[in-house]
Amino acid sequence: MSRYNRLKRRVYEVLEVAKPDDKLSKAVDIILMSLILLNVALIIAGTFELHETAIQVFTVIENVSVAVFTVEYILRLWTSDLKFTELSPFRARLRYIRTFAAVIDLVSLLPSFIPAMSSSFMVLRMFRVLRLLRVFKLNRYTHALKDIGEVFKRKAGQLISSMLVVSFLMIIAAVLMYDAEHEAQPEVFDNALSGMWWAIATLTTVGYGDIYPVTVVGKIMSAIIAILGIGLVAVPTGIISAGFTEQIERNKAEKETPEPDDEKTFCPYCGHKLDK
Amino acid sequence: MSRYNRLKRRVYEVLEVAKPDDKLSKAVDIILMSLILLNVALIIAGTFELHETAIQVFTVIENVSVAVFTVEYILRLWTSDLKFTELSPFRARLRYIRTFAAVIDLVSLLPSFIPAMSSSFMVLRMFRVLRLLRVFKLNRYTHALKDIGEVFKRKAGQLISSMLVVSFLMIIAAVLMYDAEHEAQPEVFDNALSGMWWAIATLTTVGYGDIYPVTVVGKIMSAIIAILGIGLVAVPTGIISAGFTEQIERNKAEKETPEPDDEKTFCPYCGHKLDK
Amino acid sequence: MSRYNRLKRRVYEVLEVAKPDDKLSKAVDIILMSLILLNVALIIAGTFELHETAIQVFTVIENVSVAVFTVEYILRLWTSDLKFTELSPFRARLRYIRTFAAVIDLVSLLPSFIPAMSSSFMVLRMFRVLRLLRVFKLNRYTHALKDIGEVFKRKAGQLISSMLVVSFLMIIAAVLMYDAEHEAQPEVFDNALSGMWWAIATLTTVGYGDIYPVTVVGKIMSAIIAILGIGLVAVPTGIISAGFTEQIERNKAEKETPEPDDEKTFCPYCGHKLDK
Amino acid sequence: MSRYNRLKRRVYEVLEVAKPDDKLSKAVDIILMSLILLNVALIIAGTFELHETAIQVFTVIENVSVAVFTVEYILRLWTSDLKFTELSPFRARLRYIRTFAAVIDLVSLLPSFIPAMSSSFMVLRMFRVLRLLRVFKLNRYTHALKDIGEVFKRKAGQLISSMLVVSFLMIIAAVLMYDAEHEAQPEVFDNALSGMWWAIATLTTVGYGDIYPVTVVGKIMSAIIAILGIGLVAVPTGIISAGFTEQIERNKAEKETPEPDDEKTFCPYCGHKLDK
Repeated sequence: MSRYNRLKRRVYEVLEVAKPDDKLSKAVDIILMSLILLNVALIIAGTFELHETAIQVFTVIENVSVAVFTVEYILRLWTSDLKFTELSPFRARLRYIRTFAAVIDLVSLLPSFIPAMSSSFMVLRMFRVLRLLRVFKLNRYTHALKDIGEVFKRKAGQLISSMLVVSFLMIIAAVLMYDAEHEAQPEVFDNALSGMWWAIATLTTVGYGDIYPVTVVGKIMSAIIAILGIGLVAVPTGIISAGFTEQIERNKAEKETPEPDDEKTFCPYCGHKLDK
Repeated sequence: MSRYNRLKRRVYEVLEVAKPDDKLSKAVDIILMSLILLNVALIIAGTFELHETAIQVFTVIENVSVAVFTVEYILRLWTSDLKFTELSPFRARLRYIRTFAAVIDLVSLLPSFIPAMSSSFMVLRMFRVLRLLRVFKLNRYTHALKDIGEVFKRKAGQLISSMLVVSFLMIIAAVLMYDAEHEAQPEVFDNALSGMWWAIATLTTVGYGDIYPVTVVGKIMSAIIAILGIGLVAVPTGIISAGFTEQIERNKAEKETPEPDDEKTFCPYCGHKLDK
Repeated sequence: MSRYNRLKRRVYEVLEVAKPDDKLSKAVDIILMSLILLNVALIIAGTFELHETAIQVFTVIENVSVAVFTVEYILRLWTSDLKFTELSPFRARLRYIRTFAAVIDLVSLLPSFIPAMSSSFMVLRMFRVLRLLRVFKLNRYTHALKDIGEVFKRKAGQLISSMLVVSFLMIIAAVLMYDAEHEAQPEVFDNALSGMWWAIATLTTVGYGDIYPVTVVGKIMSAIIAILGIGLVAVPTGIISAGFTEQIERNKAEKETPEPDDEKTFCPYCGHKLDK
Repeated sequence: MSRYNRLKRRVYEVLEVAKPDDKLSKAVDIILMSLILLNVALIIAGTFELHETAIQVFTVIENVSVAVFTVEYILRLWTSDLKFTELSPFRARLRYIRTFAAVIDLVSLLPSFIPAMSSSFMVLRMFRVLRLLRVFKLNRYTHALKDIGEVFKRKAGQLISSMLVVSFLMIIAAVLMYDAEHEAQPEVFDNALSGMWWAIATLTTVGYGDIYPVTVVGKIMSAIIAILGIGLVAVPTGIISAGFTEQIERNKAEKETPEPDDEKTFCPYCGHKLDK
């Protein structure tokens, strides 16, 4: 293996999840994570009125972060053919660019390089918030998150269905409440979208108190909708709950599956020898 | 098969859920769905103050929708003997008229044809809202929704029972809170129905903040009721959750049930023949 | 069987849950249920300001109800030795008086017979509300309610434990919030009980909006408590949910238990013959 | 056994959970529990404005409690070598001091002995609140609480993961809402921390009503976040619920596991010997 290739492999190892005894790799992981968290803190701090000095310090941190993350992106791109060994070096890089993590990295870096994007304050901040998505990098090590994701994926159909029913209920409720309350509170229930805002606050049981029915008809409808709103929590919870129970069963079944046996096979349930 | 019959069968196929390779049927499905969603949007838009031009555009869309949905209803009625092949053509049509989907279609179309029903603004809108129920058509393709429906059907007894207990709790709470708070806030807790409104807002944890106890007795009772209100979410959630877990078991059991075998016995778990 | 005994048995049958073909028993059930519901409606109506005529009508209904329920109580007491056949007639009556249903009946009737209890308006209403407990009679026919009750009974230990933890959290939160907010809002957080009221409104996620933190320390603590409050819903829901899943398993196991077989016993799981 | 040792053993027995027929031990348990609850009540009462006499009574109770709890602590320390019999007496005491219960006891007693700690009112109260942790002693007898704790421990990974996702959502929501609402309500949404306060009130569905969006963009984002907030309840509930279901299965499996048998094989499901 050439010196170039050995360096490349080492860089790849350092950037990937650290192996137990790889101290440099661990240090890099911790530094990158800390920098991401520092950036998150800076975004929040940036909404306060700040001293001139603080703004200067922030700008320095900002520039250092952009530099570090840019170098990280280039190194990951360079070593991506070690990640996708089955592809040609060029295709491996194309593939890497399209991974979810790489897209997030690129989008969060772009505004710092394109002055036109920085000019509009609102647009800039929206992109900076996207940079927060890097926090997910902290989680890509977490095995448990994958379990949660799997439950959601397997139950997506049922969850979306229940959300559709809820949306339907929400629209019906919005129009009915507008009809019931518009005359009594023309300022508050000014159109069906206000009704929708009310429906969401009620169905999710947030209930800020900025909008609520005052007529008898409105209150009766509100009561029915609030009770149906319990279903809004109960159905997805039930689906997700059943999904996790199923997940446990699956993990157990995987572990318990007996190793193939050349001579004899036993029933994994009753332990009895099976005829062939 | 006569030309008439072939046409009829084709119309039936086009209106029913599209087969994978039937492009016309798919296009019709998408057009009908889009038209329903457009109508939903129109109902919401109709609650805003609109320009003269917008109202004219809306009227045109309204009329086109009514025409399309009327034709759809007639064609579905015509081809309904292909849906219920076991019945005579006349009985098949009678049966179709009584299906849930057909009743919704008819009720949502009627106000457009009966001027007397359109005269009252409130009544008209109520019927228009019912037209929203067509959204369920979007879902009748969804397999997952059927699963959710089955869980609710199987658990209906327990869910209704728990709702009865909650209603009981609500009435008790309403009368007690009226007694406790009426003197301190005669305007807010003016009768037991106000107490009921408070009880619903509290038990569902919406808590708008338009009505709440101020006396010590009222606050203590409110605390107890709010904590019991957690049960209002916990019990139906628990029932539905268990129902979904059961559903998963059932679906699995159905798939795994081995065919009966006269000669040999198989383990119902691993499907292997058992040694005798 | 003497004529007296036949009458007694008939009265007992009529008062108990109706058999499918016993029309008189069914009619009596429906009349008693309707009268209970009418009384519930009267209690709510009684909190409105009423016309002189309405009050007179209400008094008549009240008196008729008391008469009917008194007769029902006496008849049930008389026939209670048919209910508890294993006891002597005298002991059967003593036992009946101590059943939950009989105690509710008696307590709800007493205020109508003891004028001293009727004199105090508040006390009278409290007893009238207790009469509402008769609604549970409507449920004693419901098989599903028994299932729910069983789950609660079996999970009582865990539910009470989680409630203890919550109470602990509530007291801690109340005192801490009083310390944090007392100086900033001396009127609102006037003592630890106000803190408790806030803690309950927050942990149950009702959030009326009459009391909330305004200091930074208070808001941070409030955030932590609100997130812990999610556990308040999650833990009992999880316990109850697992309870219902267990219940389904139990009911299934009961049904599937194989009939005893004199000759051979088979494993109900793998269907294999068992050695004795 | 020497008289000293017999006394020591008796003290140990009395302080530990009472055996069914040990009346003295039971009495001590009840006295200690009552004293803890009395202290909890005193902390709450201490936030009210009190008469001079009440303060004197409170001081007496306070001093008695401190004396009793100090004696209890010393006796438990003395007898700790009977608790950890496998360790040397000295190491047993060191081990006892580091147990969770002992640390709580010591920390809650210290402020009464160190005058410097009592001088600052706020610090004193914070420590007094910690004394509340003694309530957990009431629970250390409860078997059910251990079950709940085990479920949380086993599901810790998934629960923390879901909390991480929620935190991420919260930060994104806070910054976005600040951007959307800052101009319209500069007083209410003054910086991203206010956005965070809003996000917590919304995601936990508390919704006090002190802070809510008024712009259209803010309301749409709020709606999305509120609906995602349902997941905040649904996911931990689902995880915990599955955990309790698993717990029941485990407890059942433990009871049912047949003892290994060299000669014969038993069906692990029905416990019967299998025919070979």
